[in-house]
Amino acid sequence: MKTYSIAKSRRLRSTPYTSRIEKQGVTAYSVYNHMLLPAAFGSSEDSYKHLKEHVQVWDVAGERQVEISGKDSAKLVQLMTCRDLSKSKIGRCYYCPIIDDKAGLINDPVILKLGEERWWISIADSDVILFAKGLAIGKKFDVNIFEPNVDILAVQGPKSLKLMEKIFGKKITEMKFFGFDYFEFAGAKHLIARSGWSKQGGYEIYVENTKSGLSLYDKLFEIGKEFEVKPGCPNLIERIESALLSYGNDMDNDDNPFECGLDKYVHLDTEVNFLGKEKLKEVRKKGITRKLMGVIIEAKGINVSKSINLINEKNSKIGELRSGVYSPHFKKVIGIAMLDKPYCKVSQKIKISINDDVFEGKVCDLPFI
Amino acid sequence: MKTYSIAKSRRLRSTPYTSRIEKQGVTAYSVYNHMLLPAAFGSSEDSYKHLKEHVQVWDVAGERQVEISGKDSAKLVQLMTCRDLSKSKIGRCYYCPIIDDKAGLINDPVILKLGEERWWISIADSDVILFAKGLAIGKKFDVNIFEPNVDILAVQGPKSLKLMEKIFGKKITEMKFFGFDYFEFAGAKHLIARSGWSKQGGYEIYVENTKSGLSLYDKLFEIGKEFEVKPGCPNLIERIESALLSYGNDMDNDDNPFECGLDKYVHLDTEVNFLGKEKLKEVRKKGITRKLMGVIIEAKGINVSKSINLINEKNSKIGELRSGVYSPHFKKVIGIAMLDKPYCKVSQKIKISINDDVFEGKVCDLPFI
Repeated sequence: MKTYSIAKSRRLRSTPYTSRIEKQGVTAYSVYNHMLLPAAFGSSEDSYKHLKEHVQVWDVAGERQVEISGKDSAKLVQLMTCRDLSKSKIGRCYYCPIIDDKAGLINDPVILKLGEERWWISIADSDVILFAKGLAIGKKFDVNIFEPNVDILAVQGPKSLKLMEKIFGKKITEMKFFGFDYFEFAGAKHLIARSGWSKQGGYEIYVENTKSGLSLYDKLFEIGKEFEVKPGCPNLIERIESALLSYGNDMDNDDNPFECGLDKYVHLDTEVNFLGKEKLKEVRKKGITRKLMGVIIEAKGINVSKSINLINEKNSKIGELRSGVYSPHFKKVIGIAMLDKPYCKVSQKIKISINDDVFEGKVCDLPFI
Repeated sequence: MKTYSIAKSRRLRSTPYTSRIEKQGVTAYSVYNHMLLPAAFGSSEDSYKHLKEHVQVWDVAGERQVEISGKDSAKLVQLMTCRDLSKSKIGRCYYCPIIDDKAGLINDPVILKLGEERWWISIADSDVILFAKGLAIGKKFDVNIFEPNVDILAVQGPKSLKLMEKIFGKKITEMKFFGFDYFEFAGAKHLIARSGWSKQGGYEIYVENTKSGLSLYDKLFEIGKEFEVKPGCPNLIERIESALLSYGNDMDNDDNPFECGLDKYVHLDTEVNFLGKEKLKEVRKKGITRKLMGVIIEAKGINVSKSINLINEKNSKIGELRSGVYSPHFKKVIGIAMLDKPYCKVSQKIKISINDDVFEGKVCDLPFI
């Protein structure tokens, strides 16, 4: 496939790590929250294999934070998500679908409870800050909303625990999944969470002190040599195999959380007040008409830059592929598709046209692995 | 400068014209409102010269529309902008700063009044739809807000009038600047405005009927041969010479409209109700402390991918360059900078460090030409 260069400008913001990753061999970028997100360091398949075996450091500063603080902060945060946060605890991360009044997805961030009246919404690619500001202004909430200078470094892969232990000590390995705590390095405290956009284990370091963060970046590569550390980025193969959904790719504002299989984060039978609650009750009553499912296609490669129709044996459209990649594990193309409900059956046969050739495939449950 | 490729995905949406511009030689993309925006067809300087002499067709589908309709639509649209729209007319476009309650810029769209209760906000690069939805929900406004399938084609350059006249007749040449009307082509009505993101004259075609729009695209190139039509895109050299401000590049949420020289769109002494009005009155009373100005630098090239500090003769920071480019017209680098007020004087000397070399320059008024 022909490649195109990215035209850099201040509008596509650089991160504090950009100059480092460019020296380290980044080859492609995506744009995420108006910021450069590294998308490849050479071969995606090599990077996938390395990620599953060793440890990588990722510049994911594009995962911007929306800080909401003040007397009404809990009320505002709850209003935006269908997940019940009434029993949420300080020091924990919560994966939360954010929806509008029509139950359409706006984002699927991880929300960090920093204090009873202070939250970070660690966002996927949409301007949640504008939604929060609009709601707060309209509702006259007593809150302060801004984007702090936080530039996340992710440390991902099976050896991430060992690498992080060498720098921060045993305590960091004892932190539970989706817990966070503060750790000191080079004169600054860093919020570090046991989280990350892979299923290979690891941490996300919420760098507020850039100078200390850059020292930490260099230290991770210095200490990491014995663990074969490499620079990396969210990996398309790994994230699809693991079914980590990507907002804007797999789902968007036209989809509701039930259609995206996010049922366990939809808390309708609670007292909490959130947007789209009545609409979601309706959806639950009527049932959904389509759903995100996995598909496995008998092909050796695919590039999904827009939805690709899936058809049945009568050549009728039965859904659309939204993400897809060749999986070295399955030795086939795997993908995430929004399928009409009657076809959401494991082993359902599907067909897809890729570059004018028709390939066969079948439906499966998510995740693949 | 090393180039990096863009990693395509459904999240960076293609436009209906993407496959055409790729056949026609697009070489670089930017991302604008989560959509691919062509950024180069080979040499930017060649494209600049061509744009100033002939006519180009641009895929600017990334200029997405936020449609707001319903009983409270005028109230909501007015709430978001400091420009008085109480006397606005159907069939006209209005350049409007959108600001939040702290008077920070959120976007600088062109707003089209389609009817007394129907508006299109033709946005720069930020999710205005989320701000509008948040406000409408919070204020319980009776409105309908969505992103319609509108994919703008711009026809820009001095020969654009002749080209468009050949297709749509004399009437289209009589339309006034920032006026719009409906014109038929291939069985569909297209909203066409006398507007565009260059100062070379032209039109923007708000394509709703994709099939007809694609026929029109092809027709423009077929008929346009005699006018030496070429595919193009917003041109960095031309837009900086003309001082067409770019949200995210020249200004962002930390800037207010006065700092950006948008005074004539700030209507404080009116009855209309908009966000940030009190804050802007304060700013007006106290006076601004910095302002966007032009700078001319004695250098032969520059790449501005993030703010670059401007310094005075004592090496103190006096501002930051936010956009810049080598201008073939001035045979120097020209740029748009946010400068501390004491230095906002024409001919004020400045210094800037580009790739470790220090260059001299001076301040000037905008636009350059």
